Parts: sequence; C-alpha cells; structure tokens
Amino acid sequence: MEHKSLDNKIVSRVIEESGIKSFATASIREIVRLVNQLEEATGIRYVRMEMGSPGLPAPPAGIEAEIESLKRGVASVYPNIEGVKLLKDETSRFIKLFLDLEINPQGCFPTVGSMMGSMAAFLVANRNDKSKEGSLFLDPGFPVQKTQVRMLGHDYASFDIFKYRGKKLKEKIESFLAGGKVSSIVYSNPNNPSWMCLNEEELSIIGELSRKYDVIVIEDLAYFGMDFRTDYSVPGAPPYQPSIGRYTDDYIILISSSKVFSYAGQRIGIMAVSDHLFNRRYPDLLRYYTSDKFGHSIVFGVLYALSAGVAHSAQYGLAAILKSVNDGKYRFIDVVKEYGEKAKIMKSLFTGNGFRITYDTDIDKPIADGFYFTISYPGMTGGELLEKLLYYGISAISLDITGANRNDGLRACVSHVSRDQFKDMESRLKSFNCNYPV
Amino acid sequence: MEHKSLDNKIVSRVIEESGIKSFATASIREIVRLVNQLEEATGIRYVRMEMGSPGLPAPPAGIEAEIESLKRGVASVYPNIEGVKLLKDETSRFIKLFLDLEINPQGCFPTVGSMMGSMAAFLVANRNDKSKEGSLFLDPGFPVQKTQVRMLGHDYASFDIFKYRGKKLKEKIESFLAGGKVSSIVYSNPNNPSWMCLNEEELSIIGELSRKYDVIVIEDLAYFGMDFRTDYSVPGAPPYQPSIGRYTDDYIILISSSKVFSYAGQRIGIMAVSDHLFNRRYPDLLRYYTSDKFGHSIVFGVLYALSAGVAHSAQYGLAAILKSVNDGKYRFIDVVKEYGEKAKIMKSLFTGNGFRITYDTDIDKPIADGFYFTISYPGMTGGELLEKLLYYGISAISLDITGANRNDGLRACVSHVSRDQFKDMESRLKSFNCNYPV
Repeated sequence: MEHKSLDNKIVSRVIEESGIKSFATASIREIVRLVNQLEEATGIRYVRMEMGSPGLPAPPAGIEAEIESLKRGVASVYPNIEGVKLLKDETSRFIKLFLDLEINPQGCFPTVGSMMGSMAAFLVANRNDKSKEGSLFLDPGFPVQKTQVRMLGHDYASFDIFKYRGKKLKEKIESFLAGGKVSSIVYSNPNNPSWMCLNEEELSIIGELSRKYDVIVIEDLAYFGMDFRTDYSVPGAPPYQPSIGRYTDDYIILISSSKVFSYAGQRIGIMAVSDHLFNRRYPDLLRYYTSDKFGHSIVFGVLYALSAGVAHSAQYGLAAILKSVNDGKYRFIDVVKEYGEKAKIMKSLFTGNGFRITYDTDIDKPIADGFYFTISYPGMTGGELLEKLLYYGISAISLDITGANRNDGLRACVSHVSRDQFKDMESRLKSFNCNYPV
Repeated sequence: MEHKSLDNKIVSRVIEESGIKSFATASIREIVRLVNQLEEATGIRYVRMEMGSPGLPAPPAGIEAEIESLKRGVASVYPNIEGVKLLKDETSRFIKLFLDLEINPQGCFPTVGSMMGSMAAFLVANRNDKSKEGSLFLDPGFPVQKTQVRMLGHDYASFDIFKYRGKKLKEKIESFLAGGKVSSIVYSNPNNPSWMCLNEEELSIIGELSRKYDVIVIEDLAYFGMDFRTDYSVPGAPPYQPSIGRYTDDYIILISSSKVFSYAGQRIGIMAVSDHLFNRRYPDLLRYYTSDKFGHSIVFGVLYALSAGVAHSAQYGLAAILKSVNDGKYRFIDVVKEYGEKAKIMKSLFTGNGFRITYDTDIDKPIADGFYFTISYPGMTGGELLEKLLYYGISAISLDITGANRNDGLRACVSHVSRDQFKDMESRLKSFNCNYPV
C-alpha cells in the first residue's frame, strides 16, 4: 500500500468533515483522530509524527512483575496512597544513581502518569502563598500543563527561551519573578518540542532565582537522559542528567515512565519532592488542606483526593524496572537511543528536500537528535505546512500550540515512524519539494 | 495470639505518640495507621472495622484478562483517554441489564477509581453555571468527596437525611435549591455509612427537583446492588437497582469496582454520563475548557488533564469482569452477600452487649445488613466510644467525619473481620459491657 498515491479529493473531504477550523491551533488529539480517518479513507499509511508516544515494547521486567503481583492477589487490595515501599525505595535509589541527588523515599510518589504528577504539583505549589498567582512556563512546552493550571483557576506566564539562552536567561526570568506573583517555574529538559537542553549554568540561574524569590521549581524529566550527546547511562557514575536539584532546595522532579521505559499504557509516573520542600510549612495551604505541611498536603490532600493512589500491579511493574535499571542490568538509555538515530536520518530527509530545522541550535551547538525535532518550510506558516503535508501522507503538529514564538514550524516525533517507511517518506518529501519550489 | 489480653499502658502510649488530638475528627487513614501501630506494639489482632476496603479476592476473569493484555503488549501503548471500546460497550450493557437505563457507550468512561470519577464530575458539573456555587450533599457520606469540592475552591451544603425520609425529603432539599446556588446533588445509595437506601419515591423527588432547578445529580453507586433485602442479581430482569436515571435527564452515575468487584487495588471505576447531559452545552464551561459541551469537557478537558486515561491492563480486566457479569456467568451480588451475612451476626454481637444501632431504620423498616453499619453506646459520644474500644482490640471510625447529625456513633465496616474472629469479638464486647455497665 506504500506505493499508492493519495487521492486529493478524499483528503479534502476528510479534512472538511473533521470540523478542524485551524491547523495552527488544532490539538494533538484532534490531529490523531483526523489522521486515523485519513488512513482509513485513503488506504495509505501515513508518516505519523503527531503524537509523542513510545514506539518500543515495554521492558519484560515490568510486565513480569505486574503479572506476578496480580497472581499474588494485589488487585483486590487498596494500594498505599503514597506508593508501595519497594517502588519508593527504588525511586530514591534511581534519583541517587542517575541524578546524584538525595531524596528520601518518603518524598518519592507514584502518580497516574506524569500528567497527574504535574496536576498534583500545581494543586499544592500554586496554593502555598495567597499573594501569588500561578506558574511561569519556560516555553516551548507541553500544552496540557497550561490547561491544568487554567483548569485549577490559576494564572500563568510564559516566554520562548530560544533567544534567552545562557546568561541572558537570568534577566528575562527575573523580569517575571520581580513582581512577586509567580508560585512556580515549570520546564521540561530536554525540551518538548524543540529538544533544546538547559545546561548547568542555566539551571544554576534558575536555582538562584528560585531562592531569591522563593519560587518552587517543577522540573519535568519526561525525556530523562535522552540528550544523547552526553552518556548519562552508567548508574552511580558521572556525568549525571543535569537537574535543578543541585541548585535550589524547593523543587519537584517529574519522571514519566512513558518514553524512557516505554510504559505509557500503565499510566504510572514518578513525582519526587525534595526533602526541604516536603517538610516546609506554608500557612496558606490551610485554605485548602488540613495541614500546612507541603508533603502532608501532597499525600493526604491531593494524591488521596485525585485517585487514592496508583494501580497496584503497575507500581510493582515500575519498581521492577527501576530495580533492574539501578542494578545496571537494564540499560534503558541504550534502548531509547534508537529514537536519536532515527531522528538523525529523518532530519536529513527533511533538510535534503528544502526544509529547515526550526529550532536548530542549542546555544552554540547544533541541536541534539532525540525524540522530537522541529521543521519549517520557507514561506509557509506552521498551520499551512501541516495542512499541505497531509496531502503527501505526512502528519505532525503545529508549534503554535506549544507556546513557541515561531509560528512557522511543526513538531515532529520520531517514535512511530518505522525505518521501513524512510524510503517512502523520502519520495513524498521530494514531490512536496517539487510542487512547492523554494 | 487471640487469647492474649491488651496491655493498657502500651495502648495509652501508642495513642499518645500518634499525635491524634480528637477521635471524633480523626480521618480514616489516621485511624488505620494508629491501629497498625497498636497491633504491632501489642501483638494483638484487632477487630478492624475502620476502613471500607474489600475482604474478598478479585474475580479470576479480571486477573486473567489483565495478564493476557500485558502479554499482548498494552503496557507500552497510551490507552484512549475515553476508555477502550470493549470496556465502554460492556459498561453500557451493564447499565442496561442492571439499571434498565440506556446510556450510549460514548458517555461511559473508566476513571482512576470512583475517586477520580467524583473529582471529574465536580470539575465540570460545578462549573457549568457561573451564578452557582457548588454541591448539595445528602449526608451522612464519604468525607473525601467534600474534600474534593473544597480543594477545587467550590462551596457545599449538606444535611443528614435520617429525619427527612420519604415525602419530607422534598421540602428539605427544595429549601437548599430555592436559592439557585446549587450546581449538583450528591449522594451514595446504599448510603455510606448508615446503609439507608433511598427508594423510588425519594429518587423521583430528587429527579423532579433536579429538573425544576436545573441541577445535575451525581449518584454514587459504590455499593451497587448491596441492599440484599431485594434481589437485584439477575441481568436484564426486574427488580433493578433503584437509580436517579429514571427520574431526570441530567445525571452522572459512579460505579466503583472496589467493593462489588473486589478490585480496589487496580484503581478503576466507572463514570457514566447520561446522553442528555453528555450533549448539553453550557456556555460558562468555556471559562475553563475549550468546548461548551459537557461530554467534550469531561474527556478532553478533565480526564485528559487529570491522568490521560486509566491503566491499560486494568481496563481490559474490568471489561472482562463486566462481560462475565453481563453474560450471567459471574453473579457478583451473590459473591458479596457474604458481607450482609457477616453484618447480621456482628450487629447481634454488638446489640447483645449493650450497644445500639445508631441509624436503625430505613423509613419504616429495620435497616438492611450490608457493608457498613453504625453503632452507639449509651452515654458516650462517638469519639469517646472509639477511644475506649481501642483498649478492647476493636476499631472503627467516628460518625462525626461523615456529616452525620449523630455525634454518638461509629461506622463499622464488616469486610476485614473474618468469621474466625467472631468468638473473640464477642468476649471483648462482653468485657467492655461489664466495665461500662449501661
């Protein structure tokens, strides 16, 4: 079916029927649904780059531990809200071995995906001081975290960091914090979608400002260790994944299992609250919770009321994966390197056919190859480019919805494009380039 | 170890160290932790009635389907936010067969426990009209649902229904609704903790008022079919579990899998939104969500942002349980009848030793035997009674935290007391009765 060509009329009709008004602002899930319909209507397999979901199988250690726990009878027993002991211990150990940070197991919680992790973080971190108003997002970023803040009735500010890298970051962030209204700073590192990676100097600036203005830092490590330019893969040995934990006392780290452990289906992530923050008291929390202690509000306020804990078997599954990673048996970073290798090839297919990498540099170096990259085509906005590429069997999402300053680009995710599609992808990009000469 | 007697000094010390200031207001989880410590320090096995968790094994159909799905590879794949098709279909079928209601599979969602179900319901139902302020709870009830409402910055009202049963319910509820500030009415049926059961007449009153004042009804069926006085166990045949669905258009039904399917560990419940409500448009929802449609806000607003769906294998597990129930193969109500049978015996042990049943009647009939019952002892408040019983190896929770008018009672849950403890329980109650003569 790869060699069939697309029927423009069918594509037009399906797009028309989808009700999508603007390809610049359509959500990821709307594009996913549209491309499902396009594949069904046209019979053509798309080069699908719109959704950031894993393309590798789950680690056998996790599956086996889940099965074993189910046979043991955990399905009928409420899990502890704060997480089963084994998982808390292995999480704390993972953080020591791969981040070189000390976080007591007590502050290491499973959450129902990192989605619930950020939700729980906002529910407490953005309510600790009634004179403050919400989060500062270092953009571009994952759009749903802003949805969460809005849903909770909080406010947020954001800016695109591309032009404020290195020392320039300080003045820019401080311009937001100086008003005293910011509760928390949020970013993902590596950055989704641009794959920019904040370095130690930049993290030290964020840490310094966090202390100066008493702002909690929420660090999203959804793509833990996936800046493949540096080898973070050896447990307990430097170099370590850069982290805010070295530069401030009050921070929350979110580690998704979806990408690095290919475990998106079981909805389990990790939320680690620094010891200092866990034990801090904020009288304004009493407006919403029965305790003024941050850690107590997280467990008995938020995690209890959101879902009363995480699926029991999934906790044993993730604990087993972490144990095998911590013991040096499962080298998870080596496994996900495949994404970086595919990114390198896919980027060259784009740039060889008139495209440009939108976010092309990481301060003074070329951007790394990872899970996402960004693409532009001369003379087109992101919305236009996305709509036109759909006629060539290629899908992605517009950068407009990620808080990027650039409205001429798309985010492309490598995970669901298989190597056997590369040849086809190349010929589609060639015809695109012929029909839209630069 | 059953025949050792408790060392009062040790009990006093452990209570002292627990930091619990008042047994009237201590939360369920605080009592659980205290009794864990008491059992450890004294070496005595308590008659534990404080936590409403299942005491039966999970149905093999669920476990097997989870294991099979894990082997098939679902752990690495994001589940649909709105739930896998099989589960949605079997849920809609279950609702038809056991409630005689038609709800389109599209409005049947898995949630991370009914805990997330009520949270999701409040996040949309209490935001559909900016002139309204929150929920009306028909008490007594499950305390955490009020925590959820408070956490979201909404308001709530409540009253104890015991003195307002039957026709008297109308005037009482209307006195709250008449102000036009109530967004939703919330109750559990059978009632946790009193085990009162709202009947068809009362539900028709709630339905009538729901229409008159345009209020959404949130019906919590956590103890589905567990009013064992009536046999609701035959799929597709009357009598059916009473439900608000017969009396109003705009309702949400929550069905926990924790008790009726003994599946508390996997954190999966069902939220069913009536077709009429699913398709209704409320312009005020646009303050928080991208759509004014109730159903769209539930899926792409709330369920997406809370956890991006429910653990994949647990969805297949619950789907298999429901299928086997719907096919008439797994008679779930027969299985949980054991709770009612134990309740009958345990209540007689209490009443034979000076205790009274606090909520003793269901309008004009004796209260049913089920998962919970309520107990009082002449001349003692609930807090006093709970503290004193701990010295006799018996634990429960105070009714004060359930919104009950009665502050002289405790909620007792039968699930974790095994029949081999009854003899011991009887002798402990006898000594209690001797030492506190009525």
